[in-house]
Amino acid sequence: MKVLLVLAHPEEKSFNGAMFEAAKEIFSRDGHEVKTSDLYRMGFDPVSDRRNFKSVKDPQYFKQQVEEGHATESGTFADDVEAELKKLEWCDLLILQFPLWWFSMPAIMKGWVDRVFAFKRVYGSGKWYDAGVFAGKKAMLSLTTGGGEAMYEPTGVNGDLHAILYPINHGMLRFVGFDVLPSFISWSPAHRSAEDRAAELERYKETLSQIDSLVPIKYPALTDFDEHFKLKVQVTK
Amino acid sequence: MKVLLVLAHPEEKSFNGAMFEAAKEIFSRDGHEVKTSDLYRMGFDPVSDRRNFKSVKDPQYFKQQVEEGHATESGTFADDVEAELKKLEWCDLLILQFPLWWFSMPAIMKGWVDRVFAFKRVYGSGKWYDAGVFAGKKAMLSLTTGGGEAMYEPTGVNGDLHAILYPINHGMLRFVGFDVLPSFISWSPAHRSAEDRAAELERYKETLSQIDSLVPIKYPALTDFDEHFKLKVQVTK
Repeated sequence: MKVLLVLAHPEEKSFNGAMFEAAKEIFSRDGHEVKTSDLYRMGFDPVSDRRNFKSVKDPQYFKQQVEEGHATESGTFADDVEAELKKLEWCDLLILQFPLWWFSMPAIMKGWVDRVFAFKRVYGSGKWYDAGVFAGKKAMLSLTTGGGEAMYEPTGVNGDLHAILYPINHGMLRFVGFDVLPSFISWSPAHRSAEDRAAELERYKETLSQIDSLVPIKYPALTDFDEHFKLKVQVTK
Repeated sequence: MKVLLVLAHPEEKSFNGAMFEAAKEIFSRDGHEVKTSDLYRMGFDPVSDRRNFKSVKDPQYFKQQVEEGHATESGTFADDVEAELKKLEWCDLLILQFPLWWFSMPAIMKGWVDRVFAFKRVYGSGKWYDAGVFAGKKAMLSLTTGGGEAMYEPTGVNGDLHAILYPINHGMLRFVGFDVLPSFISWSPAHRSAEDRAAELERYKETLSQIDSLVPIKYPALTDFDEHFKLKVQVTK
């Protein structure tokens, strides 16, 4: 299996960093190929605009999808974007490793998505969701939280973490075709003992070593929707 | 009223840019004070790390909350962060204007939140949600979508837009105390006629001129939660 690990944490010695290293170790041990994008150490630039391209399709008005379509046809993505595109296209499994900041991914990782998930190359022309470019590949979030698990339950003060992650799991990963594995959530490692953190790392390694057994999150198929992109059947609650 | 308008769009002539200008015009006309953060034109840097600070509390290990707490006490935020903090603290009403990119805000705006919503200065020590630092102030999202409205209904292919915006409305704005006004959503302006877009701008101006009449989104109060931060009463469905 070809595995791409993407990390977004400013502190290399963080628990997120340790999880990233643990994933590298386990996948390498198990005979998989691993590539990485350690966004902070790479100095990845998350601002999306004309810098994404070597080419200019419309110099008067910048519409990102127009420029992305043009860059796809002419092979003119900026070098940093192209390098990430190649890794993304190469992998069978993508893991995004990040601390939950403001109920989403850090900006450096959001910008990785904004810039790299490019129109025509990564989605578009009917290629989305289960008909997406990356259909058949797997992706998984691995994240840490600040608050404890009770705060993120459906009746917790922060709201249901699965609902909070839906825009990422469904809107980013599933949108481009990935089968989305259940997120690995490490609750509040900063407030736990060194022993607990070590045990948590072991739990993560164990999960990764059995990743083939994880069942992807079930989403509706495109064929479940009508011509207005609304579900044909009413969802029962 | 003191109004802070924050814009995240790479193209100045975009519909988002027009909405930003319309808001400036209406609030100025109605006698309010307006400040702006046009993040792309400012060249705002969205990457959050030691660059946020002039000071170093712990040179061995970067923990953002520790450095934020220290910078709050010693007044040592980096100039770009401090300038945004001052605007945020100054305003009575905050409007975030952005195109929905990957079911969230563009990275340049996410980084504005990551860097500026600082521990001890903007939240912490029991100051969150309805007990937050900005309690009594109002905030509103104004956004454009790529897809049409049907796609974003609860049974639409993209999922319920209000659920998609929950991590922003509740997790960012409400978290720091704002009363969150209903989002102004401009559906798919890129696929509409010039006349429709002009009418949409008028609808936005009309909404802003009557902003005092908008009823904030209802969220539970901190006193509704028990000592484990779970709702005391069961939610009925």
